[in-house]
Parts: sequence; C-alpha cells; structure tokens
Amino acid sequence: MMTFNSDTYKRRRDILRQKMGTGQLLILGNDESSMNYKDNCYRFVQDSTFIYYFGINQPGLSAIINANGDDVVFGHELSIDDIIWTGPLPTLKERAERVGVRTVKKPDELSSSIGKKTFFLPPYRPEHQIKLSRLINKPIEQLEALISLDLLLTISAQRSIKTEEEIDQMHEACTFSGEAHRALMTSAHPGMREHHLVGIFENIGMDHNVHTSYPTICTINGQTLHNHYYNNELADGKLVLVDGGLHSKGGYAGDLTRTFPVSKSFTTKQKDIYNVVYEGFIHAINIARPEMLFRDLHLRTAVKLAEGLISLGLMKGNAEEAVADGAHTLFFPHGLGHLIGLDVHDLENFGEEHIGYFPDLKKSKEFGLKSLRLGKAMQKGYTVTIEPGIYFIPELMNKKEAEGLHKEFINYDKVYEYQDFGGIRLEDNFVMREYGFEKLGEYLARTVDEVEELRAEAYG
Amino acid sequence: MMTFNSDTYKRRRDILRQKMGTGQLLILGNDESSMNYKDNCYRFVQDSTFIYYFGINQPGLSAIINANGDDVVFGHELSIDDIIWTGPLPTLKERAERVGVRTVKKPDELSSSIGKKTFFLPPYRPEHQIKLSRLINKPIEQLEALISLDLLLTISAQRSIKTEEEIDQMHEACTFSGEAHRALMTSAHPGMREHHLVGIFENIGMDHNVHTSYPTICTINGQTLHNHYYNNELADGKLVLVDGGLHSKGGYAGDLTRTFPVSKSFTTKQKDIYNVVYEGFIHAINIARPEMLFRDLHLRTAVKLAEGLISLGLMKGNAEEAVADGAHTLFFPHGLGHLIGLDVHDLENFGEEHIGYFPDLKKSKEFGLKSLRLGKAMQKGYTVTIEPGIYFIPELMNKKEAEGLHKEFINYDKVYEYQDFGGIRLEDNFVMREYGFEKLGEYLARTVDEVEELRAEAYG
Repeated sequence: MMTFNSDTYKRRRDILRQKMGTGQLLILGNDESSMNYKDNCYRFVQDSTFIYYFGINQPGLSAIINANGDDVVFGHELSIDDIIWTGPLPTLKERAERVGVRTVKKPDELSSSIGKKTFFLPPYRPEHQIKLSRLINKPIEQLEALISLDLLLTISAQRSIKTEEEIDQMHEACTFSGEAHRALMTSAHPGMREHHLVGIFENIGMDHNVHTSYPTICTINGQTLHNHYYNNELADGKLVLVDGGLHSKGGYAGDLTRTFPVSKSFTTKQKDIYNVVYEGFIHAINIARPEMLFRDLHLRTAVKLAEGLISLGLMKGNAEEAVADGAHTLFFPHGLGHLIGLDVHDLENFGEEHIGYFPDLKKSKEFGLKSLRLGKAMQKGYTVTIEPGIYFIPELMNKKEAEGLHKEFINYDKVYEYQDFGGIRLEDNFVMREYGFEKLGEYLARTVDEVEELRAEAYG
Repeated sequence: MMTFNSDTYKRRRDILRQKMGTGQLLILGNDESSMNYKDNCYRFVQDSTFIYYFGINQPGLSAIINANGDDVVFGHELSIDDIIWTGPLPTLKERAERVGVRTVKKPDELSSSIGKKTFFLPPYRPEHQIKLSRLINKPIEQLEALISLDLLLTISAQRSIKTEEEIDQMHEACTFSGEAHRALMTSAHPGMREHHLVGIFENIGMDHNVHTSYPTICTINGQTLHNHYYNNELADGKLVLVDGGLHSKGGYAGDLTRTFPVSKSFTTKQKDIYNVVYEGFIHAINIARPEMLFRDLHLRTAVKLAEGLISLGLMKGNAEEAVADGAHTLFFPHGLGHLIGLDVHDLENFGEEHIGYFPDLKKSKEFGLKSLRLGKAMQKGYTVTIEPGIYFIPELMNKKEAEGLHKEFINYDKVYEYQDFGGIRLEDNFVMREYGFEKLGEYLARTVDEVEELRAEAYG
C-alpha cells in the first residue's frame, strides 16, 4: 500500500503528537480475520487509523506515537520458514523506515511500553478487545469506559479534513466506482440475476486490482434498504438499485448509487419519482456550504423531496410542516449522507455520536433522523456522500398508517398504489470547498435522459 | 442456504446425540466480522459445524444439542425496525422448524442452559473466545484446556464420512471450480496481470451466486506457495499457477490447481517438470485405497516425483533413499493433500493434529511432513485433495545447500539452473470409494496436450 511518501506519515504523526502533547498514543493495527478456521482468512483489511499514521498494510502490528518523538512499530519479522511460503518481502524494519519510523520492536515488548499515560481508541473488533484487555490488564467490559475521548476527537478532527493528496485518492475511488456502475447500466438485461451484476461490478474492481469498499447493494427491491440477497431475476418493468463503491489504489472509499430501469426506458411513474429524487439531490448539492449543519442540509433536502411528492399527490399540505412532522420519513427513512474517506463511513469505528455530532449537537432519536450519521457543521476539506432516496416500503406504510401518523400530510390511498414500486436512490461523493461542494470523480450519468442513453447501449 | 431437507439435519443431530450419550453439546454459530468499523462487515460465513447440524446461515446464533432430544437454537427475532432495512424474512422460529428444531430462545437465555455437562469445541474466532469465556465464566486463556476432545472427535468422525447428498455437493463445487479454471486457461494472455485473472475467476463464481472457498492463489511465481500479490504482469515464457476453488450452492468447497504457460505452449523444460508432477499425481490417485495411511500415499508419491527428478538429472541416487533423507522436500515442501468438505481444509478449526492424525499416529515435525495436514488412514466416504507440486525456491536451495543437506541426492548445480523456473502444482478432489478414488466434478484439462489445447483457444 503506502500511498503517500514518508513525510506525509511523519507529518500526520507530528500534528497528532503536538495536539495531544503528552503520553503514549496506542494505535492497534488489525489482525487477520478467520472465516471458518484460523488459517482461512478473509482478505486482510488494515485499521484505517493505523494506515493513516503508519501506512503499513500488514496484519499483526501495533504502534505507539510517543510524546518524545520516538514512534515505535511492534511486530514480528518473517522467518526463513515464512519466506519459503511467502517469497522474499521487505522486512518490517524496512517498511517502518519508509514511513519514517526508526524503531521496530517485538509484539511482546508492547506491554512494557504501556503506562499510565497511554491513550487508546474504542476497540471495534473482538481481537482488539482481547488484546487491549491483556495489555492494560482490565476486563473487556471496562474498556469502553477507559478509551480516550480526547485522542478520539483529535484524530477525528485531523482525519476529517482531507488534504489534496487524499482528495486525489477520493477522485480515483469515485472514478473507479463510476466505471463499475456504468458497466452495469450498459450491460444489464432481463433474465440476468442480481448476482450477475455484482460479479461484473467486482470484476471492474479486480481489473484495477482494488476491492469494493463495502458489500454491494444490488437489487430489484430497492425499498429493502440493505439487501444482499442477489438472487432475484431482472424483469422488464422493474428498477435496479445499485449502491456500490470501489477503493482507490491507496485504499480510499468510493460510494455511489444509481437506479435504472431493467427495460430500455423508465415508465412514466418511475420517471416522476426519479425526478423528485433528482431534484432533491441537485438542491442538496447547490445549497451546501461550509459551516452549514449537515442536519439542516438533510432537512432542507427532505423539504424539497416533500414538495415533489406533494406535486405527485402522494403527500399533501405544506412541505415544511410535513417535514417538521416527520411525514417524509415514510418515503425517506434514512440519512442524506455521511463522512467518507479511508472508511466508507469515515471514522465510524470511533462512534457515530462522536464523529457525526458531538460537540456541535446531539443525535436525534426520532425515526429518520436517528439514521442520519452526520449532523454537525461541515468544514472545508470534509468529504461526504449525498444520497437522497424515495422508497415504498409496505411494512412501513402499514405501520405508520396503523399508528395514525402523518394523516394530514400523507395520501395513504395513493401511496398504497405504489406498493410494488420499489425504491430509487441517487448518490455521489463531494468535497467541501470554499463556497460549496466539488464533485469527486468523473461524471456518471445522473438524469433520466443520461441513464436511458446508457440503457440504450445495453439494448444496442 | 438450507441445502438438505429437515430430516438430514435431525438425523445428523440424533447420531451425534446418541454417540455422546449425555449432556448439552454447545455449537456456537458465527457472528458478523467487521472490516474497518462494526457495521462494515465481510460477507457472512457461518461456522461449518453449525451449518452441518443446524443448516441456518444467519449470524448471531448459538445452539444446544440436548441428550433429552429437545434441541434449542438461541437468537434474536427481527424487529419491525429491522424489517424496514432488511425486508420481510422468515422468522428464526420458521427457520428452526425447517431444520427440525422446535425450541427457539433469546441469546441471553443461553447461559442458564449451560451446566457441568456442557461440552464445547475449540473457539477459533476471537468473538467465540469472548462469548465462551462469558458463558462458562472462565478466562479466555483457560478455554483451550476445557474443550471436549470427545465431542471434537465424535463430530470429526461423523463429518469426515460424506453422505451421497454431500458428495453431490462436492461434485458441484468441483465442477464450478473447474469452469473457473477453464475460463482462465482460455483467456489469459501476455500483458494481463494476475489480478485480471482473479477477477475472471471470482466472476464465474458470482455467475453461479457462489463465492471462492479460499483466497485464490494466482501467480507467475508459483514457487511462492501462498502468493496473494496479484500485480505481476503475465509475460511470454512464464507459467501461471492458479490454486482456486468455488463453493457449491450448498456451501461445500472445491479446491483445484492448474499450471499453464502464458505462451501458447509449454517450453521443453516446463513440459518435463510438468510431466514429473503429472506422473506423481496419476500414481497417487491410482494407488490410493481405503485404510491406507495418507502419510504413506504422500511418501509414495514423493518417491514417484523423485524418480522423475532423477531422470531429469536434478536429483540422483535411489529415489526411496532420497525420500527417506527428505531430499524431495527441496522441490516438494508441502503436503500431498487434506480433507475437504464444508471447509476447504475440512474441520481444521478442531486442530490439525486431532483431525488429520490422532488417534492413528502423531504428526511429524520434519520439514515437509510437518506441512502434511492429513496423515491418518483414509476411510470410505472421505473427500480429499491430491495436489503434488514441484517448485524451485531460491531461498530454500540456498538454505539447504548452506546446511549441507541431501548432497548425495541433489545435483545443486543443475538445480540452480532452474532458479527462475517458478513452480508447478496439479490438484483435483476425490472421494474414497470401496476400491479407491472417484474423481469429483467434471474433468478439467490435466495433461500437457489438454492444457495446450485450451491455451490455443485463448490465442485463437
């Protein structure tokens, strides 16, 4: 991996060191993750914070950033026996030097480096819990209470503002992702199944030697928000919703969504809903500014979506009042977007409430807003997703109507006519600049006409 | 998933119950595995023993097989909030009924079902360690000593003998795997990189809606036994070694290896080594019989390989004496094969020494034999891989010569001429029948001529 040159990693550590001022900052790398027995592992995914400060994409490492400036990487060197199986590889010492770290120690030397002023982050993998519990000699149950909120917020502030070299990586991730989406739009046809499309998507990734940044959602049942079933057949008249992203070569995540008809063209009904989503999307990217609360961007986009739904007769009354009542959540139950970077939900392992909200505001527990991962004010250099959607979820219609909710704002009779519609979502990624968003990656068909043009290629 | 009908699962549990006779048999299912934060997960892989006895492919479950016949599955039912995100799914109660289990309880009811006569298996995932440690109230460090060897060996004996419906699954896994190998042999050409081939391989899997059963080895450096680098360019004159397998629809693993030239044809040197491997392979599958120690099959195959290498002048002296001296391990440092089934190394999570050896014999610590996963006597119904190979590993040549090893049997001067050769392996999967092996899955090009015929298609 090692995406950037050694100065980058050293500078990042120096900034963190200076901000924290004291102590040892413990950064745990990830271990291999077993599937069905120890040696049959998922592909290795390194911890993003470890990659950010140390850039070494190798399992079994830990590191300490020291106030005294002598940072240490802990890990085993390969033995001759290992080399027979893995071939000659650079030593850990060499890898550490390439990211500006002069000291490499054995893993069992880590515990003696732990002191009263050792700060650490929330362990999100069970292996981290076990490791941390042993290192600091506290039960796993107590770890959460002992994490350093200060370290977490300092790293979060640093990692949230992307540098230009990181933004280049984000451009690449989105361009690769867009290429994969385009491949599906130009090849899907009736009779294929969802898994065929997923195979094509992942194969575009392997063509670039990169992986998907999260499990691809590819479904004719777009109303099912997290659908990984993949066995439905593409049939004329249905929509395909694809929410998928690829990594850049340097491990940054792309996260794009497109919805397209299995047939050559959208039906009028589909086109109408698509355009409501599209207008909401355009509205969001036009009004976003630095210092705006992302929660406000979410709610103002919801108003735009409600206006569209009112014009189609699915909602009624005043759009702003409808959104204040939460009526739009029948159609748009999730959040408008989230931070993105090395993680597709960037920094989410630190805890959504810390990363997306605190200290600006608290996360709402209301239906809809509770699914909004990012609420706080956007800053220049933030990279985010914008992903409005409209879904017709039978279980949710039944529930909300049975509870007597939003009667002033929803034409339930009309809504039930859309029970088999599915769902539409549209998503691109952006970086916040001086006056608003800059789109990341090459442009990918977004309007009804542009999407239908690609579909014509599939039928060409 | 649920590959077989409910009687199958019930019968499997009844057999185990009867053999064990007493107590509660605790079978832990797997949880989701996080990549870089809790909710971004690798694709879910269920524990194979859980699948074998309970057939439910869903995270977060545990189960108890009770001596009294009332088996219990522990897990959460989906809430209406979940259903909004996942769509309507069969309830856990329904899924349990389909595999003949009438009792479903909440996860927190599990601890009260644990008693002095609760038996459990080795925890191979950190989440299992944490869960088990809490359930039985013992530190993680003590778990290994508390596992039930009796349960482990009883399950191992049962799972090792495949039924006809399992063998059908193995046929399917090998046929799918063979199709993927064939696709690479008919499409690889100079200028492509290894990752392009991996993409094609995985895509054939997704066409069948199945995944690879282990991370694919696809390399022009076949001498590097476990190579997942994927970025080398295919160049004329090089060999490509592909060790990859796909699952059957029901989750059984295939594991095939082929080695083919990047060019249209093998060079004479390559053909010679290929034929030595091929002859070793054919010898192994011809002489294998029930009750034969797999270790003996390994060693007799090694003798055949040594004879071939003597005829090429790479080795010298008497082949049997050479193998007794371990000289063949310079070229063939790994084992001839292993059990295969739901796991590609079947049951390896129980511990290689228990599954592949005990109680027949002990695993050797010698170089070569220590990498042989299966040593004990084969039985009818065993499914195994047969995978001889010859490699030219510069680090190993240097090491063995420096240590003065095998001087009587190795022509080191000649061996060094092959430093850039790479490696060749050939692998198919078999089930042991009354009089010997039956090949699993459709035939896949194996001889020099058959391989070259497929390569001609790529150049066609």
